[in-house]
Amino acid sequence: MPHIPLAEGLPGIRGLFAFRPETARPLSELADVLLHQPATLSPAERELIATYVSALNNCFYCQTAHGAIAAKHLGGNEELVSEVTRDFERAAIPDKLKALLAIAAKVQRGGKSVQPGDVERARQYGATDLEIHDTVLIAAAFCMYNRYVDGLATWSPTDMAGFRERAAQVARDGYLAALANIAATQATASSRK
Amino acid sequence: MPHIPLAEGLPGIRGLFAFRPETARPLSELADVLLHQPATLSPAERELIATYVSALNNCFYCQTAHGAIAAKHLGGNEELVSEVTRDFERAAIPDKLKALLAIAAKVQRGGKSVQPGDVERARQYGATDLEIHDTVLIAAAFCMYNRYVDGLATWSPTDMAGFRERAAQVARDGYLAALANIAATQATASSRK
Repeated sequence: MPHIPLAEGLPGIRGLFAFRPETARPLSELADVLLHQPATLSPAERELIATYVSALNNCFYCQTAHGAIAAKHLGGNEELVSEVTRDFERAAIPDKLKALLAIAAKVQRGGKSVQPGDVERARQYGATDLEIHDTVLIAAAFCMYNRYVDGLATWSPTDMAGFRERAAQVARDGYLAALANIAATQATASSRK
Repeated sequence: MPHIPLAEGLPGIRGLFAFRPETARPLSELADVLLHQPATLSPAERELIATYVSALNNCFYCQTAHGAIAAKHLGGNEELVSEVTRDFERAAIPDKLKALLAIAAKVQRGGKSVQPGDVERARQYGATDLEIHDTVLIAAAFCMYNRYVDGLATWSPTDMAGFRERAAQVARDGYLAALANIAATQATASSRK
């Protein structure tokens, strides 16, 4: 049971967004810039970083939701997402992404864990300053989202079909559209009362 | 030395905000809602939570900057801020704030650490659902800001006078005004080139 009363039918961070729209807005905008808006790292690569950090933080809702979005961007390749969270160094992904995931893992432990050698490895495989910046901020941001979702004990569905359906929407329309959907759901629910 | 090239003269998160304005905006908006805009927890209480979590994460820049803002809101009482970061259970603060700081400490370790008893204690001292929500999100957000600042190895001044001067501005005008100041500084710097 969540630590505070949240709207039923909205799992994970979605119930929290409905509870506090003032913080939902910047939290969704941040996710949209980092994961959805155009960048030299593909949405699939950025969602894999988010999924991996959420797995390290053992956040079921976030790792399943973002894992499904990553898989959608990868043409439905859920097996590759599993490979990355299990052991990314052996996964069938580019060396640059492996180096960025290694940085993300350090950030998850604590900011000071990132060493010049970690950044050097990423640069050797062609990572730009902006890609290194965004990797650190994605990893740091998921250390926030994961703690937010689990720190208030939100519930999560376990059925993958719902995650896949929402993943298709988010992969296509992004995180600000997802936030607008929550507001619309809320308005419909309250007009029914 | 920072892991990526950042503008000189802008320490901590300020250099990162100048580097990536697209993420600076939602990150500043989030801080403004959580720490500055009107709420039933005072700005001093919310800044103390931010300072305490930053101290747990051993982020010198964040704990010093937010500690100075907390002290400013407390009429300059820097000793009380030190008491809170050293041992908040013995500090001269209300029981409700102690219970919220205990929740924040759990969030810093990981979202799942927060137990119903922690929330119950806060409620016994009068904490509302929104105050509990905001405490968890402030603590989670500083697990992000701290990792962002240290994960990219930003520099920090050590002189307290500069921190106090900026703290007075932020305590008065908030985090969106602080972001506008960075943009103005950048514009002046580039017009000089």
